[in-house]
Amino acid sequence: MHKIGIIGLGHVGTTVAHILLMKGLVDELVLIDQNAKKVNAEYLDFSDSFARTATSAVIKRNDYAELADADIIVTAFGDIGATARTGDRFAELPINKKNAALVGKQIKASGFKGILLNIANPCDVIVNALQQATGLPRERVLGTGTFLDTARMQRAVGRHFGEDPRNVSGFVLGEHGNSQFTAWSTVKIDGEAVTKLADQGQIDLAEIDQGIKDSAFKVVAGKGYTSFAVATCAVRMIAAIFADRHEFMPASVYLEKYGCYIGYPAIIGRAGVERVKPVDLTATEQAKLVESVKTITAKANA
Amino acid sequence: MHKIGIIGLGHVGTTVAHILLMKGLVDELVLIDQNAKKVNAEYLDFSDSFARTATSAVIKRNDYAELADADIIVTAFGDIGATARTGDRFAELPINKKNAALVGKQIKASGFKGILLNIANPCDVIVNALQQATGLPRERVLGTGTFLDTARMQRAVGRHFGEDPRNVSGFVLGEHGNSQFTAWSTVKIDGEAVTKLADQGQIDLAEIDQGIKDSAFKVVAGKGYTSFAVATCAVRMIAAIFADRHEFMPASVYLEKYGCYIGYPAIIGRAGVERVKPVDLTATEQAKLVESVKTITAKANA
Amino acid sequence: MHKIGIIGLGHVGTTVAHILLMKGLVDELVLIDQNAKKVNAEYLDFSDSFARTATSAVIKRNDYAELADADIIVTAFGDIGATARTGDRFAELPINKKNAALVGKQIKASGFKGILLNIANPCDVIVNALQQATGLPRERVLGTGTFLDTARMQRAVGRHFGEDPRNVSGFVLGEHGNSQFTAWSTVKIDGEAVTKLADQGQIDLAEIDQGIKDSAFKVVAGKGYTSFAVATCAVRMIAAIFADRHEFMPASVYLEKYGCYIGYPAIIGRAGVERVKPVDLTATEQAKLVESVKTITAKANA
Amino acid sequence: MHKIGIIGLGHVGTTVAHILLMKGLVDELVLIDQNAKKVNAEYLDFSDSFARTATSAVIKRNDYAELADADIIVTAFGDIGATARTGDRFAELPINKKNAALVGKQIKASGFKGILLNIANPCDVIVNALQQATGLPRERVLGTGTFLDTARMQRAVGRHFGEDPRNVSGFVLGEHGNSQFTAWSTVKIDGEAVTKLADQGQIDLAEIDQGIKDSAFKVVAGKGYTSFAVATCAVRMIAAIFADRHEFMPASVYLEKYGCYIGYPAIIGRAGVERVKPVDLTATEQAKLVESVKTITAKANA
Repeated sequence: MHKIGIIGLGHVGTTVAHILLMKGLVDELVLIDQNAKKVNAEYLDFSDSFARTATSAVIKRNDYAELADADIIVTAFGDIGATARTGDRFAELPINKKNAALVGKQIKASGFKGILLNIANPCDVIVNALQQATGLPRERVLGTGTFLDTARMQRAVGRHFGEDPRNVSGFVLGEHGNSQFTAWSTVKIDGEAVTKLADQGQIDLAEIDQGIKDSAFKVVAGKGYTSFAVATCAVRMIAAIFADRHEFMPASVYLEKYGCYIGYPAIIGRAGVERVKPVDLTATEQAKLVESVKTITAKANA
Repeated sequence: MHKIGIIGLGHVGTTVAHILLMKGLVDELVLIDQNAKKVNAEYLDFSDSFARTATSAVIKRNDYAELADADIIVTAFGDIGATARTGDRFAELPINKKNAALVGKQIKASGFKGILLNIANPCDVIVNALQQATGLPRERVLGTGTFLDTARMQRAVGRHFGEDPRNVSGFVLGEHGNSQFTAWSTVKIDGEAVTKLADQGQIDLAEIDQGIKDSAFKVVAGKGYTSFAVATCAVRMIAAIFADRHEFMPASVYLEKYGCYIGYPAIIGRAGVERVKPVDLTATEQAKLVESVKTITAKANA
Repeated sequence: MHKIGIIGLGHVGTTVAHILLMKGLVDELVLIDQNAKKVNAEYLDFSDSFARTATSAVIKRNDYAELADADIIVTAFGDIGATARTGDRFAELPINKKNAALVGKQIKASGFKGILLNIANPCDVIVNALQQATGLPRERVLGTGTFLDTARMQRAVGRHFGEDPRNVSGFVLGEHGNSQFTAWSTVKIDGEAVTKLADQGQIDLAEIDQGIKDSAFKVVAGKGYTSFAVATCAVRMIAAIFADRHEFMPASVYLEKYGCYIGYPAIIGRAGVERVKPVDLTATEQAKLVESVKTITAKANA
Repeated sequence: MHKIGIIGLGHVGTTVAHILLMKGLVDELVLIDQNAKKVNAEYLDFSDSFARTATSAVIKRNDYAELADADIIVTAFGDIGATARTGDRFAELPINKKNAALVGKQIKASGFKGILLNIANPCDVIVNALQQATGLPRERVLGTGTFLDTARMQRAVGRHFGEDPRNVSGFVLGEHGNSQFTAWSTVKIDGEAVTKLADQGQIDLAEIDQGIKDSAFKVVAGKGYTSFAVATCAVRMIAAIFADRHEFMPASVYLEKYGCYIGYPAIIGRAGVERVKPVDLTATEQAKLVESVKTITAKANA
């Protein structure tokens, strides 16, 4: 049985639930939110669709005890309004630190032994707080981190060349926030180094970089939140975990060297973060990573 | 190629787009809304997901000319706030009548020759207005109507007996609104007449009926709108059209006898509404249908 | 985790595996067959596809011990050649009785506690033999039985009227073999009794019945075996089990009254056969059911 | 509407049809084979599944005239027995050259204007023959070529390191046959050059190479044919064409420089082969490519 808990039923958590249901990736779904009427409304709306769908699930409501035997918990609590108003994912920090402590405690109390996937922002700080509050092993706690920003980079580079984003490899690293950076030395399209294409004047990396950073806020400005892309990233990670794919992807994972969670490439499978994969970075990129570590650590201790 | 236009990018229109993309049911999507920033935000959010999905589509923005060769148009414009505030789908009538006239004119101007599927409320009145404004043949214009309400009835009856909603057959007929009614004489679970089970005291049909009517408003009260179930119904109809399934379902279709669109069973396929299927109703049910026709007609002429 | 064992990798077992993989319904697949080279070939062929698919699974080969923690086992062993040569599914009886005893013993030895779904023919006799050999509770052992024959009836009736087979409800009951019969009193299209349409001369039920019985053998005559439809039926049952759908369907289930497994409607969910649902049959249909019970029992004791 | 013709209903053509149906990628399927009973059997077996599936299609049988408005034709004719007996895909050359001429002529006569995707072996020679016989533009005719062999290389390298085949990029180039070669200079796992890992003694490329070449024949030896992986590759290409993904992949495409079809990276979209992408090869790899061109050309002229 695939049992998944989703804590926080804003647009992101709800969209994760919807994609899981549509893909038949979940047999039992535990929906949790402070707003019981919202949980009930989503429960009814999903249930009303099951007469018309090929896939469905048993849905439980606002019961932390149900998490005891869940395989995966997705945390997606928060106040997107704060980010929308300020343009900074750290605006949600104070409220989500409290959320993380509270939620983490209840997860621990449930006896949950599965994998925790955090989407709540600031992603890297909150995933750390959740790991501490739950006491789960570090390899069984991770965040979507720059898996989303990397998707945006792939889209931006792909679009520039009129190609499928899947033709683009490489990573955005660091904080899922303003100190993130594209490790351009790792980026390739159709196997060709994008830096070489930049040298040939075929693409302006600074312009692309700005576009990637702006993208989330353009979405937030236009619809008030982001949902589809980040939820899709989370579900891709969930699928890799269930099928034990050992899939290589950037995610918010714990780096021993820096003592914090941060967006970095890793192998993801049933055990969670099977291992972090060291990437060759240029000195400039390495410096940006260290800078991003500092930003995360400072705010985590704020 | 599957080309689909969606007019109105509120929660429902956007969710229809999302399901179509996830199911790989659309190759080219034309997104249209008065709010250009909203269209752009959804476009970006969908595009950002394509590095992580198995399916994708070309997305065009706010270009009515693109509808010329679309296979299907989904209309989902409106002001859910009006319904939420009043508890009556007819609250959206004045604004959506204007929308229908305006949108219908632009669809007509595009040269669109496909099938128009309306979700905008009040569904039956608006689908009629759209048929008139576009001049499309009546069999190529239909609405989701009581296909959703029927799904809710299936869920309610199924839940009562602890069974899959797909085990339940039969219809909710009439207006997708307050004058709708469950034609209980048509409803069966596992092939057994539910009226017989009611006679045996196994189920209270009045109670179930109230639950079905309340369901939409409970969802609206809890989340501010309904989205997943109605969008799922619309996509199920779209799939039946593309695959030419000749699928039997209640939908908002034109009844010659009454001279209006109303929720009634029909066969749906590539030609749109292939034929309406007369249902045996009890005298009481027949009277309710006539009453619902009057309600729709009165408000259509209001 | 979804763990499924498939025993017997002929065309049917292999197609079940393929559909499960494509639908992402399985995380760990245990493939078992006497022919180790065949198992290895299917393993390689599936594995070679995983670079191109959105879903995948861990595949184990020929290891009964792996069944200890499987959720579901599908048994699909047999010698389709015997059926093809004779036109009678009972031709596989002697070899499959031996197979059932041998396989059942090894399943029991593995400590398997899940649900066993049998496809091997003669389905009703073999599912009984497997239940006895494994000692599993009767409600956790079932067969595809007339779920397939019912699908064929739905196709035949639907086709006759130019409609979707899903518009047709009702059952083929009894043996998944020559003594099966369509319980025409239960069959409806678009909610209308097919017997009434027959009385009006709109459909010749004897002709349809003959078509249903012939269908499997036409498929076998043309391709040497049947695979897609029966495997699809099995996967539909597996999906109902994982999602605990409480889905109503005819299947080969144990009828206390007759002391044998036979095709009859039941509610299927995570517990397996949740309950058998008595159907109102005409006296003639009832007699045919009893006749079919005799056929199964006689051959089971042969 | 998605209309697809499949010519040749052996295991591969039939599996392509099955995957297309399951994924809902086809609305109208035209099945063509010299063996009319086989066509009818597959038609019945698929149709019998539609009462149980979420997706379906209209299926036409053995009617070349239906190809006039098809979007895509898949050619999968041949005699796998010849390859199985000899271990060389060129064993099917004489019979498939005749098939290509005959089938190509009938495709041309139908007025087909879509995209032709060939799987029949020897793939590169046959795709060339089909292009000539149909007179279709070269960019609208392509073959699966080394897209399958590349998947096998990804599986082999991935397995060696215990990782997802999708973590591996790079190509197998040249003939889909014995003169093919892995362009190891292009191959990376998790972004790391595999040649570097080979230099470090972490992987033996010659061993992997042998495994890739042997893989197809191990599958053929064990099950008599290959089906799932090659059909999956073909469907992936079809999906890229419908959704106009501009996906980068090795395929059998026409190289102007060499005047023949051969496995080489290209961008695939709605127009077919949008462009061939030149790859940097080592001198040794370049020589192998030229050698493979010679092999293909010699046999094409044989």
